[in-house]
Amino acid sequence: MPVGTVATVKGVPQDILEDLGTQIILGNTYHLYLRPGVETVRRMGGLHGFMSWPRAILTDSGGFQVFSLSELRKITEEGVTFRSHLDGSSHFFTPESAIEAQIGLGADIIMAFDECTEYPADAARMRASMELTARWAARSKKYFEEHKSEVPWKQYSVPSTQYSVPSTLYSASATDGGASLLSKDNRSEKSDNRVLSTEYCSTQALFGIVQGGMDRALRKESAERTIEIGFPGYAIGGLSVGEPRELTREIVESTLEHLPEDKPRYLMGVGTPEEIVEYANLGVDMMDCVLPTRAARHGLLFTSEGKVSIKQARYAQDSGPLDPNCGCRVCQRYSRAYLRHLYASNEVLAQVLNTIHNLSFYLDTMQRVRHSISLGEVSRFPSAVWSRPKA
Amino acid sequence: MPVGTVATVKGVPQDILEDLGTQIILGNTYHLYLRPGVETVRRMGGLHGFMSWPRAILTDSGGFQVFSLSELRKITEEGVTFRSHLDGSSHFFTPESAIEAQIGLGADIIMAFDECTEYPADAARMRASMELTARWAARSKKYFEEHKSEVPWKQYSVPSTQYSVPSTLYSASATDGGASLLSKDNRSEKSDNRVLSTEYCSTQALFGIVQGGMDRALRKESAERTIEIGFPGYAIGGLSVGEPRELTREIVESTLEHLPEDKPRYLMGVGTPEEIVEYANLGVDMMDCVLPTRAARHGLLFTSEGKVSIKQARYAQDSGPLDPNCGCRVCQRYSRAYLRHLYASNEVLAQVLNTIHNLSFYLDTMQRVRHSISLGEVSRFPSAVWSRPKA
Repeated sequence: MPVGTVATVKGVPQDILEDLGTQIILGNTYHLYLRPGVETVRRMGGLHGFMSWPRAILTDSGGFQVFSLSELRKITEEGVTFRSHLDGSSHFFTPESAIEAQIGLGADIIMAFDECTEYPADAARMRASMELTARWAARSKKYFEEHKSEVPWKQYSVPSTQYSVPSTLYSASATDGGASLLSKDNRSEKSDNRVLSTEYCSTQALFGIVQGGMDRALRKESAERTIEIGFPGYAIGGLSVGEPRELTREIVESTLEHLPEDKPRYLMGVGTPEEIVEYANLGVDMMDCVLPTRAARHGLLFTSEGKVSIKQARYAQDSGPLDPNCGCRVCQRYSRAYLRHLYASNEVLAQVLNTIHNLSFYLDTMQRVRHSISLGEVSRFPSAVWSRPKA
Repeated sequence: MPVGTVATVKGVPQDILEDLGTQIILGNTYHLYLRPGVETVRRMGGLHGFMSWPRAILTDSGGFQVFSLSELRKITEEGVTFRSHLDGSSHFFTPESAIEAQIGLGADIIMAFDECTEYPADAARMRASMELTARWAARSKKYFEEHKSEVPWKQYSVPSTQYSVPSTLYSASATDGGASLLSKDNRSEKSDNRVLSTEYCSTQALFGIVQGGMDRALRKESAERTIEIGFPGYAIGGLSVGEPRELTREIVESTLEHLPEDKPRYLMGVGTPEEIVEYANLGVDMMDCVLPTRAARHGLLFTSEGKVSIKQARYAQDSGPLDPNCGCRVCQRYSRAYLRHLYASNEVLAQVLNTIHNLSFYLDTMQRVRHSISLGEVSRFPSAVWSRPKA
């Protein structure tokens, strides 16, 4: 899921996202709550209407960014008090308000408000944090069940008649546990958005989040308690927070054993091209990471031959494509020399083209994984090459 | 001609420029000479190959930017010594080196090296400057005639086979005086680039520039002396340098009387949407201005209802399109509220979408002027509305 923090995947217009075969993007509730504000988005028919994105959207609960971005955080049983990183204003997030905000934003999939356990943390901290998350999950669900009909989808209104209804076939409904999200024919990358309208799910899908730090037993307990509350999909949170990668894999593999096989499994905040293939092979269904987009803005480009740092002098007169094995519009048209020049000149087009390529690389990789899955095979790519610098 | 300063029209990928019906873009020799350097561009087959632009390109001589951007300029009969605004390094431009650089960059149309007379200037200054430009024009042409075969078009090489030859039908050849530039069927906005290949002009076209400040008699003399040297096209330089607009029009109208009717007439550095219609009606054939692109980056958008400053609070929840009479991809998809949000959030997509719209507005305006011309009519648009703030 490309990350579209404030209702935009930085630098990439929505039609190009569609051309890349993007099925779902992620929006950050913390940021959107601060600017432009939930009410503005609600009045535009939710995020789909506001940003003219007719496919699927997932919002996180804001919990993680409250921890990582804001100042003067104070956590109580009730919720979290924090100061906006934008203007220092004071705010209070609770499970109820986080769900309320996400209902107003109208994403197809929304997340329970959780506490992302810091790393490292001792046993008592991991337990306390996990149990807080479990209590917050129950409150999230309760509020959701009482207010889910308030989702602003019926007020969806955009300038063009082309985008009349959001994300029909992509909506994970509360009743089918998100299965419809995965059953969409993924072979057709370029769907005509118009055929997606006419009927839509009436509510969003709220996913629960498993915590428990780096303790397998706590993770098992967290999974069981979250399942006991009952959600149409489950995420594994609190990883990729500084732990060694081998530990990440261990916890993912272990936690997956306790999650139902017939509901989507979402591993939050990962990963490199190598990692997303690896975790998909373990059984993860959904992932999000700022890496492809953020790295792109720093001129770090993932290719089939390894990582390319496009600012390097070696590319200054290189007339070849960025990645000879890539079919994206950047590799089909522009040379490395040009991309290097754009980056060296601090041109906006550098950001735009670099991001398009990196997203293409990630999305094509996932497309190949899906293909392998459909053939009943484990994905076998030279993916170990991808995360290393190109020779 | 959209301005693509350092081989990019800021934020807009080349395929979108093509979709907008862009026939020709402008590159700045001063900037490209400094970065990435003429040699790099030459080795990529010139600007067409370097930036993957198969349509027409015009480069200015660098003269204007030397005056407006660089430090410690010293002008002699020989040329101009200046320091780069990038790193303070010292450089020397002459008519010969300016033409040499432009040959290496390989644009279809290149400009004589001139002195842009400052404003205001007294009679003696205007005369001296005009005469220097005339002597430099002769030197420019002499150098060009001796070296024009060095244009790097035959070394054109890009990753995709789709762009094999530059700007065939758009090239203004030395023999037909640029008439082919204007005879291209302008009704088809979306040309398949591939049909433009297979044959191309073997050399560039060098245009002369008329100076003479704000003195009609000097302008007449400058025109006559430039025509006497002989060029396939003529530009009017040294305007829009701070003079009152009524004076600009007066000098344009007066100078045009002395330029041949059967060669392109290029008015440099203008203008607002109102002005480009006005000057086209007077007989100007080509214009360039950073206004549409630069204003876009500042959230100032030209619409059929007047200028919109998209950052204004009044648009925060406006679900309507930016310009209800515009068919561009921005107005067909996004709301004012979203565009405002992007701009307020300092998002790259704001720059991208705003620029696409403003260019669309300018290019569509010129398309309508061409249509009027073909009907033998003077363009009658409510263009007086366009340059005023929207009510």
